[in-house]
Amino acid sequence: MQQSILSNIEYPSDLRELSLDQLPELAKELRDFVINIVATKEGHLGASLGVIELTIALHYIFDTPNDLLVWDVGHQAYPHKILTGRKDIFHTNRQLDGISGFPKRKESDYDTFGVGHSSTSISAVLGMALASKLKGEIQKQHIAVIGDASIASGMAFEGLNHAGVTDANMLVILNDNAIGIDPSVGALKEYLTKAKVGVKPRTNNIIEALNFNYFGPIDGHDLPMLLKTLENLKSIKGPKLLHIITTKGKGLKQAEENQVKYHAPGKFDASTGDLISKDNTGLPPKFQDVFGYTILELARKNKKIVGITPAMPTGSSLKYMMQEMPDRAFDVGIAEQHAVTLAAGMATQGLVPFCTIYSTFLQRAYDQVIHDVALQNLPVIFCVDRAGLVGEDGATHHGVFDIAYLNCIPNISIAAPIDEIELRHLLYTASLGLDYPIAIRYPRGRGHIVDWEVPMKKIEIGKATSLKTGSKIAVLSTGTIAHNITNALKQIEEEIGHYHFCFVKPLDTNTLKQILQQYKTIITIEDGVIKGGFGSSIVAHANQHHFKNKIITLGIPDIFIHHGTVDELHNICGISTTGILKVIQQELYL
Amino acid sequence: MQQSILSNIEYPSDLRELSLDQLPELAKELRDFVINIVATKEGHLGASLGVIELTIALHYIFDTPNDLLVWDVGHQAYPHKILTGRKDIFHTNRQLDGISGFPKRKESDYDTFGVGHSSTSISAVLGMALASKLKGEIQKQHIAVIGDASIASGMAFEGLNHAGVTDANMLVILNDNAIGIDPSVGALKEYLTKAKVGVKPRTNNIIEALNFNYFGPIDGHDLPMLLKTLENLKSIKGPKLLHIITTKGKGLKQAEENQVKYHAPGKFDASTGDLISKDNTGLPPKFQDVFGYTILELARKNKKIVGITPAMPTGSSLKYMMQEMPDRAFDVGIAEQHAVTLAAGMATQGLVPFCTIYSTFLQRAYDQVIHDVALQNLPVIFCVDRAGLVGEDGATHHGVFDIAYLNCIPNISIAAPIDEIELRHLLYTASLGLDYPIAIRYPRGRGHIVDWEVPMKKIEIGKATSLKTGSKIAVLSTGTIAHNITNALKQIEEEIGHYHFCFVKPLDTNTLKQILQQYKTIITIEDGVIKGGFGSSIVAHANQHHFKNKIITLGIPDIFIHHGTVDELHNICGISTTGILKVIQQELYL
Repeated sequence: MQQSILSNIEYPSDLRELSLDQLPELAKELRDFVINIVATKEGHLGASLGVIELTIALHYIFDTPNDLLVWDVGHQAYPHKILTGRKDIFHTNRQLDGISGFPKRKESDYDTFGVGHSSTSISAVLGMALASKLKGEIQKQHIAVIGDASIASGMAFEGLNHAGVTDANMLVILNDNAIGIDPSVGALKEYLTKAKVGVKPRTNNIIEALNFNYFGPIDGHDLPMLLKTLENLKSIKGPKLLHIITTKGKGLKQAEENQVKYHAPGKFDASTGDLISKDNTGLPPKFQDVFGYTILELARKNKKIVGITPAMPTGSSLKYMMQEMPDRAFDVGIAEQHAVTLAAGMATQGLVPFCTIYSTFLQRAYDQVIHDVALQNLPVIFCVDRAGLVGEDGATHHGVFDIAYLNCIPNISIAAPIDEIELRHLLYTASLGLDYPIAIRYPRGRGHIVDWEVPMKKIEIGKATSLKTGSKIAVLSTGTIAHNITNALKQIEEEIGHYHFCFVKPLDTNTLKQILQQYKTIITIEDGVIKGGFGSSIVAHANQHHFKNKIITLGIPDIFIHHGTVDELHNICGISTTGILKVIQQELYL
Repeated sequence: MQQSILSNIEYPSDLRELSLDQLPELAKELRDFVINIVATKEGHLGASLGVIELTIALHYIFDTPNDLLVWDVGHQAYPHKILTGRKDIFHTNRQLDGISGFPKRKESDYDTFGVGHSSTSISAVLGMALASKLKGEIQKQHIAVIGDASIASGMAFEGLNHAGVTDANMLVILNDNAIGIDPSVGALKEYLTKAKVGVKPRTNNIIEALNFNYFGPIDGHDLPMLLKTLENLKSIKGPKLLHIITTKGKGLKQAEENQVKYHAPGKFDASTGDLISKDNTGLPPKFQDVFGYTILELARKNKKIVGITPAMPTGSSLKYMMQEMPDRAFDVGIAEQHAVTLAAGMATQGLVPFCTIYSTFLQRAYDQVIHDVALQNLPVIFCVDRAGLVGEDGATHHGVFDIAYLNCIPNISIAAPIDEIELRHLLYTASLGLDYPIAIRYPRGRGHIVDWEVPMKKIEIGKATSLKTGSKIAVLSTGTIAHNITNALKQIEEEIGHYHFCFVKPLDTNTLKQILQQYKTIITIEDGVIKGGFGSSIVAHANQHHFKNKIITLGIPDIFIHHGTVDELHNICGISTTGILKVIQQELYL
């Protein structure tokens, strides 16, 4: 590979030694570098390709890391990482003990704020800018780069609304490519689209209404224009916004043409861009597809069913329903709070709303779950996708808190199906109409059952299942982690009991009582935090009823778990097949 | 009382029998009715006085409850309640077993959506409007009434942003009085202020940028104008916003002139409006004032200290610091998400941010606490006010979930001081600079210590305190609920141990081990939910270390607790002095 310029750049200080006319060549090399590594190592491609020029311009013009730069969400931060001391380890991206797929403070001084969830950058940068002002650091620059999907989220609006009444020295760069992971939606997006083609006057626009100085729109791939504009903006004080237009996937034809697929395309041919097609024939389905196809099937028969996703039609597979029934399936944008209360509003009118949200993003709507849904006991069905450890996306994305944070809320039921078929049955059961809300959690990726499209049947809410009986030790699990347990038990001769608690709430206290009477030692296992989780409910119940069994609670310990494959992370937490086997054997041979 | 018109109105159907020229007289009577009852029974006054005309107009023009009306927050819903079947029981407002201070679905068909927290109305009404569309109910009207402080919250923006790309038949009435509980802040507020005086053109405004049809501004106390405008709006399809200008406290001179104080003024003279002055001399301080005065004292000595409140300068008492140090104390508006991440941004630059948020509103920023603060281990100090049962505000406002939802988050420390002095010491200790975030929770209202302004001292993080030793039974408590225990123990001759765990996290495991070894029976008591709370941590620890003590966990059971005095509610939950006494005596005389 010819990378004469990039090979000499370790840090932005090296970049700043280059002449202006070397920068377009650097952009080309940097783009190739990203493509080549992501092609084999996988990761987020499209967003990074869209900000190659911007990244170079920012580090060239501004004095990073003294000037403070925050990338919203962080999918687009690969070129930033490569130019800030991590070029040689970039191939470890998203691997266990490798660098994170997102900016992370512990990793580099250039990563001024850890990101992963959307729309935090404006608040964080405003905090930094106000701090600089208080410290008298009046020359310091503070820059947030945020996409058009992220800026439409409520949190970003709150940040803009506050910033507009301060004299904070901050620059918001609106990276407008009309797409998040899926195409952007909403009224603000339509407004920005008009702004791009000049229908709305530049003055009096929505950004200026919030007291920001508005600049642009300019072409975000025009390096000379970017450099000139950023240089000029350095001397303009107060809150300002630069609107740049970019193309997600820029420079790789297929990525430009199929932006959703090339957001994180998996392995592909770096020279042609062709995806290295995996043969998925005969593989079990992704859990998201079990949801996506099943809700469509249910909705065809039941007109009351509606679907809601905050900006994840593809990731949640609600897209199948959206395509067939656009009036009944809603992508509301990155707006988890709104998504939940919208569902509550619909439920008051007798609809059956399935609100599908990733576990980690449901944290954004915690108050709405409590205050708008559970308190009113409205039968909203939360389909909590990406529950448990999600793997390479790491600490910002693991869905490990949901059982704990939902368990303490009255009225809501919490279910974690053991496999694809039980997920299907649960969706069906919920669709029949409940008198209370329910959260159904399921993991990222594929399960183990190929023939999952069985006739649907009603499940008894609150009933646990005996998978295997034994004598001394019983393993109690919830959700798909049961698979690891089944594998572990195959390697043990002694008869160990295994019980699946599909429902964390309500607990099957009858079955639990029998188990506590029958077995001396109980091991609870869950793909979620131990504190406040399923196991803690078992311990609390045993305590309340004066059982004196030995109870071992396995799950995610009280630390943040970083990135790696799901198997690696399960292993770290002691809930892999091996880890479970070890604990059982210890107990057996005490 | 002369109430010839109002006395004949039970429901809106009666109201609609009136002629137009009777309505101004009704407005007068309704205003008097509200003033007379709130004067003696207490409650939220100002907001309701500001919407007397609007309430009459809405129920006169629209076919409630078939047309669906949602009041945002609900402080302003007293006239609505009085006109919708609850006039005769309105005097029971906010009392145990009386009507709720907020709209509540179980109370009336006219209360279409329960409220209490701000900015939910647009999402809820959009959900209803989309449901009506799907059901083919095309004539049905859907109305959200939202204040200018609430509409500036991120959640409201999310609702507007979605509504703007639908053809939902919904009307948002922006009730603009330039004040929430405290005066409104933010760029949007400044924009609306300009709109009122005509500086901005009516077209091209921020609301129209979001695809809403904008109407107004009109005088919200001009009944004929309101009636005419609402009648016209009935036939205009799609999302529309009517901007009305009102005066909070309208019709009571003092309430208009001192809008913050008359938001919820306590008892006053109905004829003069004069507050019935309570003599507070010699009373212990409110906990919020211990916070407010102490942070000011600390900030005078430590330039790194900053304060942040989302729209509660008065309620949190951050106002003292805001008045003396406006550059270092920030009211960011109803923007809990932003408040937390702003604090995180400040912490990255070495400031010491005290972020004061009511427990129930911190639910709005749950993801930001996890993702922006705890994951990055930033030393943000959360001052969690109104923790525990808050009394008359009821289920929407009880701060009972915070221990449970924070306890499962790694890195964060959780403290609950026993009294005013310990709160003061904790604030001081946190201000010295920690390496991790901390949440300090304290209740609404006054404590019991008059001479609280003692010299500040550093507290050892994670240390429990022995208040009283005993033999058989130990009571373990966290926070100010210790007071009830102390009172209960005074009535018992036997020696009962009492230990105060100022820190729920980290737990003082050394002290706990000694207690578990020394006492046969343990009773844990907290003013928070039992599930996942302090007691559950004690049970989990005992289980993990194979202690077989009997452990009884007292606190808030797994149901939503409604309104009443704090004492009444403590009694219902079994954590009043009497309730605690009963449990201890049962254990003693088993």
